[in-house]
Amino acid sequence: MPLHPSAGPDHAAFASRVARLGTETVFVVADEAAARAARGQVVYPFHLGDLDIPTPGNIVEAAARAMRDGKTTYCPNAGIGPLREAIAADLSASHGVTFDADNVSVQPGGKPVIGKFLLALMDRGDEVLYPDPGFPIYGSLIEFFGGRAVPYAYVAEGGGFTLDLDEIERSVGPATRLLILNDLHNPTGAELSARELERLAELVLRHDLWVLCDEAYFDVRYGGASRSLASLPGMLERCVILYTFSKKYAMTGWRLGAGVGPRRIVEIFNRLNVNGESCTNQFVQWAGVEALTGDQNGAREIVARLERRRDVAQAILDATPGVRCFLPATTFYLYPDVTGAMELTGLTDYESFRRGVLEATGVSMCTRLHFGPELPGETRRYLRFAYSGLSTERIRDGLGRLKTFVERHQ
Amino acid sequence: MPLHPSAGPDHAAFASRVARLGTETVFVVADEAAARAARGQVVYPFHLGDLDIPTPGNIVEAAARAMRDGKTTYCPNAGIGPLREAIAADLSASHGVTFDADNVSVQPGGKPVIGKFLLALMDRGDEVLYPDPGFPIYGSLIEFFGGRAVPYAYVAEGGGFTLDLDEIERSVGPATRLLILNDLHNPTGAELSARELERLAELVLRHDLWVLCDEAYFDVRYGGASRSLASLPGMLERCVILYTFSKKYAMTGWRLGAGVGPRRIVEIFNRLNVNGESCTNQFVQWAGVEALTGDQNGAREIVARLERRRDVAQAILDATPGVRCFLPATTFYLYPDVTGAMELTGLTDYESFRRGVLEATGVSMCTRLHFGPELPGETRRYLRFAYSGLSTERIRDGLGRLKTFVERHQ
Repeated sequence: MPLHPSAGPDHAAFASRVARLGTETVFVVADEAAARAARGQVVYPFHLGDLDIPTPGNIVEAAARAMRDGKTTYCPNAGIGPLREAIAADLSASHGVTFDADNVSVQPGGKPVIGKFLLALMDRGDEVLYPDPGFPIYGSLIEFFGGRAVPYAYVAEGGGFTLDLDEIERSVGPATRLLILNDLHNPTGAELSARELERLAELVLRHDLWVLCDEAYFDVRYGGASRSLASLPGMLERCVILYTFSKKYAMTGWRLGAGVGPRRIVEIFNRLNVNGESCTNQFVQWAGVEALTGDQNGAREIVARLERRRDVAQAILDATPGVRCFLPATTFYLYPDVTGAMELTGLTDYESFRRGVLEATGVSMCTRLHFGPELPGETRRYLRFAYSGLSTERIRDGLGRLKTFVERHQ
Repeated sequence: MPLHPSAGPDHAAFASRVARLGTETVFVVADEAAARAARGQVVYPFHLGDLDIPTPGNIVEAAARAMRDGKTTYCPNAGIGPLREAIAADLSASHGVTFDADNVSVQPGGKPVIGKFLLALMDRGDEVLYPDPGFPIYGSLIEFFGGRAVPYAYVAEGGGFTLDLDEIERSVGPATRLLILNDLHNPTGAELSARELERLAELVLRHDLWVLCDEAYFDVRYGGASRSLASLPGMLERCVILYTFSKKYAMTGWRLGAGVGPRRIVEIFNRLNVNGESCTNQFVQWAGVEALTGDQNGAREIVARLERRRDVAQAILDATPGVRCFLPATTFYLYPDVTGAMELTGLTDYESFRRGVLEATGVSMCTRLHFGPELPGETRRYLRFAYSGLSTERIRDGLGRLKTFVERHQ
């Protein structure tokens, strides 16, 4: 009998779809940074979009009360009523539309909304437009679940970044069914203008698309007001909003978010919850109710601290030779053009530059390649710095070292 | 332009796989029971496998400490090291095998292990053996992800239930790749003997299968010791264990569990975590460390209380005319044969009987049909009573009413 008990089944070991499953390569960077820190090097972690700011105390205490009050049992698959209502009210106010609790499916984080959107709406062979550079999970899950990932670009323009809407138009084909939009955008910090949103809405209607509006950074902004594609005429029935508590309330590790959209889609999300995780942690949901309906000073202070960090980081980067860094009004990322700095240092490929900087200065960051492959015609080089996990002092220290490192090569 | 903005996209609305997505029909029963309770009827909720027992205080306080200590950020996708180590140690001790942290992928509950097992190992068209009656999510997810769900039966034998291993053998075909085993079994309370596990292991090796060992009830037992298929020679590299904190620590609403198995499978689970929920709530994981390594008196008290409830419930059911109820040594379910009682009352189809009992007595429970369709040759009728959510007094009251209801028809 040809048995290999220690090796497991002989036939093709894994499901074929596993070969198409991507990851976030930032975790490799995080591991490298952690290894250097463990060896005693001072490391400045600009790579990860996490916060070193505590969750506001009223939210923590609400969770503790709920736990002690026995909110430790299963709860509705769609989420507890008061949280669904609070999220609907928040989005109705910020988006100028009318959502109710039935438009909300609570999730263990914002990220699960991506996979559930694709499972609910994307058939095998369907083409899905997604941003490149962009959050790497989009492309991974599109391909994993049998779709075709079609990237669209962000282009530098007028000191910031914008979509090339003509290129998106050219990329739409007969199999295009879905569009993933991450406005306000990680990694570039870009946001679409009212005119661009209108053009995009027109394109979505004309081509009869479903849209995932990943709005993870909607409330992380330092001036002006966020706009959503979902607010435009005809869009409400075509858009699912990815909503998360992670960034604005410094609740990344709590894993609390929601998919918000048309009821018939939300009902599928709820059924996917029944099949997936049953429900999201109940007392975490009660803490979410406090986050949205309680004292907002904590959330305001988080944004105020992030703004100070942004200003310090952007000023130093923009003053570094061969670096141009625009000042985004949103997200907690900077996405400088470092083409000149890479040439100055002679570290002309991304990994050489990233590793060279890490070794020489302790500054750890992501490159453009952590957000997807370069597209044809790309000539400029970019890095992404997350300033959410370091104090202004440490930002000044780390990016100062980076600046000195580049200056030495002038 | 043929636009229907309020209706959403015109093309086939959802992904075709959605038509194959099942649910837990118990939630319909739960809604009916809740509606009756809201109208003032006294309802006895025997339908849902949740607990009315609080999570032990040391676990609650560990979570509160971790929250206040800033364990509110992202953490490793696979889970925090101390929890992975604690789970590996627990399973190594209970299973008589050697697991380490790299064999453990922490999940937001036990349930997510089912979908991840199928996504990692089942290709389209693969056949998967699963228990019927059984947890309804198995069949739902097998079909949803493109496999073929092939049921196998539990048969009444010697006062309890057992697998028909000959039937399983006959069900294996060239496309059979996976087996889902839920030993200790929901809903019947059955557990396989050492001899049956040996025969099953031999079958698994001979047909080169992967096995999901859903061991949600492994530590909920009232005598004797649980055995796992994974402990048998040659099985460790073929089995993924579904592990959960939900039942033994009364932590259903916390959503904490793990997939435990060969490293190369666990690595895929971890990559699915990156793409799915990022990680499980960090401070919940620290509470899990306390659950496993701290005072076990809470867990012992939970099982002691469940045992008293089991004894009360089983005695009343078995004394009810036309009902035969065996006394399982595990799970918190009873699965009586009610064929005679249904005939006595004249309520001879499942839904008529369930609704008739609910209306007349307030007792709400699941029928055999909530655990899959009846298989060819099934002639006896069964109900499932979960006694985990009611005090012994309420169990005595509710099941006493049920007994009286049937007696009136004698």
